Amino acid sequence: MSIVVVGSVAFDTLTTPKEHRARIQGGAAYHFAQSARFFTDVKVIGVVGNDFTAEHEATLTKRGIDTTGIEHADGLSFHWTGEYKGAMSEAITLNTELNVFGSFDPKVPESYKSSDYLFLANIEPTLQLRVRQQFPNAKLVAGDTMNYWIADHKANLLKTIAELDVLVINDGEARLLTGEHNLVTAAKKVMEMGPKSLVIKHGEYGATAFFCDRSFPGAMNTVPFRAPALPIEEVVDPTGAGDMFAGGFFGYIASQPELTPRVFRTALFYGGVMGSFAVEKFGSERVQELMREEIEARFKLFREISHLDLDAA
Amino acid sequence: MSIVVVGSVAFDTLTTPKEHRARIQGGAAYHFAQSARFFTDVKVIGVVGNDFTAEHEATLTKRGIDTTGIEHADGLSFHWTGEYKGAMSEAITLNTELNVFGSFDPKVPESYKSSDYLFLANIEPTLQLRVRQQFPNAKLVAGDTMNYWIADHKANLLKTIAELDVLVINDGEARLLTGEHNLVTAAKKVMEMGPKSLVIKHGEYGATAFFCDRSFPGAMNTVPFRAPALPIEEVVDPTGAGDMFAGGFFGYIASQPELTPRVFRTALFYGGVMGSFAVEKFGSERVQELMREEIEARFKLFREISHLDLDAA
Repeated sequence: MSIVVVGSVAFDTLTTPKEHRARIQGGAAYHFAQSARFFTDVKVIGVVGNDFTAEHEATLTKRGIDTTGIEHADGLSFHWTGEYKGAMSEAITLNTELNVFGSFDPKVPESYKSSDYLFLANIEPTLQLRVRQQFPNAKLVAGDTMNYWIADHKANLLKTIAELDVLVINDGEARLLTGEHNLVTAAKKVMEMGPKSLVIKHGEYGATAFFCDRSFPGAMNTVPFRAPALPIEEVVDPTGAGDMFAGGFFGYIASQPELTPRVFRTALFYGGVMGSFAVEKFGSERVQELMREEIEARFKLFREISHLDLDAA
Repeated sequence: MSIVVVGSVAFDTLTTPKEHRARIQGGAAYHFAQSARFFTDVKVIGVVGNDFTAEHEATLTKRGIDTTGIEHADGLSFHWTGEYKGAMSEAITLNTELNVFGSFDPKVPESYKSSDYLFLANIEPTLQLRVRQQFPNAKLVAGDTMNYWIADHKANLLKTIAELDVLVINDGEARLLTGEHNLVTAAKKVMEMGPKSLVIKHGEYGATAFFCDRSFPGAMNTVPFRAPALPIEEVVDPTGAGDMFAGGFFGYIASQPELTPRVFRTALFYGGVMGSFAVEKFGSERVQELMREEIEARFKLFREISHLDLDAA
């Protein structure tokens, strides 16, 4: 089944302790799509400027990603400049040039409207909600957000969160959203906001899914589920890893005939797998060159490093 | 098989955001023993003062823990005063009164010498080494340490670490010991120091075991293994949770006929299980009242929250 994703399609200028890259392709919807496309058909809604050439678009289309919903506006594309220091656990924003993204008004192409799966990648929450309302019959709607919207646009964000089946955020965002240190307490408060489930990403420590509603098909009772991350020695660039986690997670779900607890859990493992590839090179470089067999081999490795029930003695 | 543990048997005065407790029983060897005794026979080496009464000793002996090796010296017992703030992720030491522990010279009773398993709980590293040398034929030797010894007694600590089969430390200690942010890089550096394996505890995120030596019977190749922690809403007191993790981990290993990769992995799960009980009440209160069935039920829960291969759809 196909996924529609709405979010940024952008250029990133990145500095890590070891390297610098200017204006490489990025954006939340871009990274999500590059990851989810291994699992299912992906249709992108976004906006780009005159600097987004046919060559840039081809990095999506040649991988089967539908770009019908990417609007070409007059001006420059969204451009984020960021830096990572030390353990690279946090991105420092040096500059955000919204450009054509500043007046983005997402339009859903006719050919997208039959999609059953909708992912609202990190953008301004009223835009997320406007797209969400155009998919009243979606089977599953998931979304992400970021500190900026939590801190300064909370009222609007809460309206979007209430319409989600799955909210996918990280530890810091969960704490900021609720004012709670403890992640279980934070998770409970988030779920009172309306989503049926919550996936909290812990970076190098994996992710935890929380459920409040036993009737949610991905939930097994209300017990949480923890998926591991792969211990990685050389993180080249964490940009987009969270979006690629979401792409693997939601892509796997959309590829399955039915959402069951087992599918939801397996999807979290695929999320971790895609996130682990994402950090190995800059931006989406590693994932663009990835082979499906590598994904399956790493999925196997994720089980191997976390499961007791192995054939070994 | 029995375990000998050497370390502090002490009193703790603790302040958490919600509560205060004065002079409750604690110490690394005490907590370790209270946890490991569910799995195997435990023999303690330590020193206490005149304030450690028969009633205090009975909290060990009535649970089958051998206290022959606890020396009664003239003076007061080791007394640690600590506080936890906010997320309670770090203990703030307010006062350390070594008392009789300051001149502790561990003596190994004859009846302890046939034990095959030795755990060097957190004490001054030359004392750890002196005890270790009295068990030249131990099947498995594991140990812990803390920031203080890493920062100020590193040369001595390295001599002890070189003699360990398993070093059990936390994220912060691994980083301090190696000067490396990245835990995989840190793990590699630690293993160059001589231990056959390394367990890094991540607190609420679980633990990771690293192996450098394929011939180590607990290793499956050199792939790491990650065990989860239980998401816990109300952490009452984290004091001793690390020692109880070690007690569950090492106790389970000692209870098994042979160290295999499967035993090592399962032991990490039991470590997490015991750590998860430890934080539910002050000091060892929760673990002292624990029933074996509760341990097995929680072990099952640990599998349920982390394994894909369940009977559920």
